Amino acid sequence: MSLNLQTHTEHFTNPLYLESGRILEPYDIAYETYGTLNEDKSNVVVICHALTGSHHCAGVYEGENKPGWWDGLIGPNKAVDTNKFFVICTNVIGSCFGSTGPMSPKHPHHEPYRYKFPVVTIKDMVKAQRILFDKLDIHRVHAIIGGSMGGMQALLFAIHYPNFAQKIISLAATHATQPWAIAFNKVAQEAILKDPDFKEGYYEPELLKEHGLSGMAIGRMAGHISFLSHESMEKKFGRAYKKDDGLYELFGKFQVESYLEYNSYNFTKWFDPLSYLYITKAINIFDLSRGFDSLAEAMKKVQAQLHLISFKNDMLFKNFEMKEISDTLDTIGNKNHTYLDIESDYGHDAFLVELDKFDTYIKEVLHG
Amino acid sequence: MSLNLQTHTEHFTNPLYLESGRILEPYDIAYETYGTLNEDKSNVVVICHALTGSHHCAGVYEGENKPGWWDGLIGPNKAVDTNKFFVICTNVIGSCFGSTGPMSPKHPHHEPYRYKFPVVTIKDMVKAQRILFDKLDIHRVHAIIGGSMGGMQALLFAIHYPNFAQKIISLAATHATQPWAIAFNKVAQEAILKDPDFKEGYYEPELLKEHGLSGMAIGRMAGHISFLSHESMEKKFGRAYKKDDGLYELFGKFQVESYLEYNSYNFTKWFDPLSYLYITKAINIFDLSRGFDSLAEAMKKVQAQLHLISFKNDMLFKNFEMKEISDTLDTIGNKNHTYLDIESDYGHDAFLVELDKFDTYIKEVLHG
Repeated sequence: MSLNLQTHTEHFTNPLYLESGRILEPYDIAYETYGTLNEDKSNVVVICHALTGSHHCAGVYEGENKPGWWDGLIGPNKAVDTNKFFVICTNVIGSCFGSTGPMSPKHPHHEPYRYKFPVVTIKDMVKAQRILFDKLDIHRVHAIIGGSMGGMQALLFAIHYPNFAQKIISLAATHATQPWAIAFNKVAQEAILKDPDFKEGYYEPELLKEHGLSGMAIGRMAGHISFLSHESMEKKFGRAYKKDDGLYELFGKFQVESYLEYNSYNFTKWFDPLSYLYITKAINIFDLSRGFDSLAEAMKKVQAQLHLISFKNDMLFKNFEMKEISDTLDTIGNKNHTYLDIESDYGHDAFLVELDKFDTYIKEVLHG
Repeated sequence: MSLNLQTHTEHFTNPLYLESGRILEPYDIAYETYGTLNEDKSNVVVICHALTGSHHCAGVYEGENKPGWWDGLIGPNKAVDTNKFFVICTNVIGSCFGSTGPMSPKHPHHEPYRYKFPVVTIKDMVKAQRILFDKLDIHRVHAIIGGSMGGMQALLFAIHYPNFAQKIISLAATHATQPWAIAFNKVAQEAILKDPDFKEGYYEPELLKEHGLSGMAIGRMAGHISFLSHESMEKKFGRAYKKDDGLYELFGKFQVESYLEYNSYNFTKWFDPLSYLYITKAINIFDLSRGFDSLAEAMKKVQAQLHLISFKNDMLFKNFEMKEISDTLDTIGNKNHTYLDIESDYGHDAFLVELDKFDTYIKEVLHG
């Protein structure tokens, strides 16, 4: 059977009431579906994307080569089997792939919002998805799965929409963003803000895509360090030096430098810097216990079967951050959760690249 | 007794033959001494500084408040007791505190070298010190102590000048700089290079000191992350938010962001960006085994009593990097070394801030 990839954009005229007290109105949500919705709508699996991800999580667009970001996990006969499940992935608000974000035209004058865009939280992103699903007449789903910022969304679904999902899987996330992750984001934010080509937010997006924004590339380099691990860098690069470069040339390069340059500058051609500022802000202020007296009080809301997965060498969201959620669930007597700490050399990136370490587990959860 | 702090600059007219095959000629070495040289010159202790350190490692200059960078360790009755030892610390070549570096006037026209400055290695820095000591008629020293890049210098002294020091203590260093450290340096280098105020190396140093160089500040933020540890950031900042900032303000700040901003922008007022490029290059290409068939072959040169100290949560130079040196010494049958892995929450910074974890050890080594 085919993947049955479909891309849609849904327009909302009702205001989205944000956690900050501000509103977003009107707004669009871009989303993608795979597989086929069954008659009783009992086969929906929601996928939540990370900071720079999009709704394109599986399959390959016509005329392109690069598959969706979780293509190894989602498709016919894969762990998230599209022969069986109807998979939905939405682009979060604040992002730049079709859902309303800072460079979207602001009603009514159609100029981009830029800094007039309100700060959105990850809870707001989840709320917007919940409203989309309502519009699609989907009121309960089989499962929600997400990694990194997607894992934060999955956890917020568990707390704020306790009857919405039967099973929730959160990978490589945290209960509240810790200072090291905020520090890595700070490097990126500062580098973007101080780049004169960013023009204090008044850049021409098409020009940026053409030339790249070195400030965002520099920030992305810091990001890459946090996504990798000492072990993966050792294996991937070691001290290999570019063969045509002289060791005593000031600008001679190690392979790791070359990797960082290539990937980071390339990144600036497909991601919007204002979206980067807004989404990293959302990640920084993410805290499951906000609005509750404690994390334990928040976790008491959870009704779904909750599966927590961490990666041992994750430098961005340390494995103990996920374990703290599991320990909290134990403390309040929740018997309906699992916690798995996966051995991986890949650090945070493991949730994207080392699928064979957890795809069987996800398959079992979905079918269990 | 007093510290007897004395600051000097020595001028050399003979060329310094560099590892690259290039020469530096003429050149200056700034250095500082504490205590008093005894008659048979048997009480010399050499201190080696790190990336942004200087020869000012102890005491307070008249009219200033800030003591030298290892003041807690060096002074009358301290671990490195200046009542007993004559302590010398030199500013490395390539740096910006008096020794010849990229912004020094190039002979004969007296314009700054800038990019005409040759790449120097840490071995070159050590060689320049050795020549200075010769000029001071010091041909053998009691001990050499250094942390981070200073620890690299200490190790190179052990290999390349095997009869020079009786005891060598290297803290928080490595046998060869690993890709994660190179990656952190890359962020800083790229941020400096892409800052238009850097003017491709043709900046006016006085103007930079006045206004700061945001590119170097951004790079320094990445550096700070590598100097700290998850544990120290958790303890120091947690998720504390600046009290006058709104949580939903895009530019509202966590304390950790405020700390990074303050320290990083401040840093750009006292350190030179070209020196930063050259010294991080020297760190990147540091490899004890260069010129030998293996690390073991290099370590066979060592005659001094060698003491290796690492810190458990060091993110920049991982503790296992020091252990690899110790293991190599074991393999070749060297019985004259110790290896100590210190529990500390402070990460790499521990060698500068958690002196009480190792000052007794250093005292024992110096007196043993």
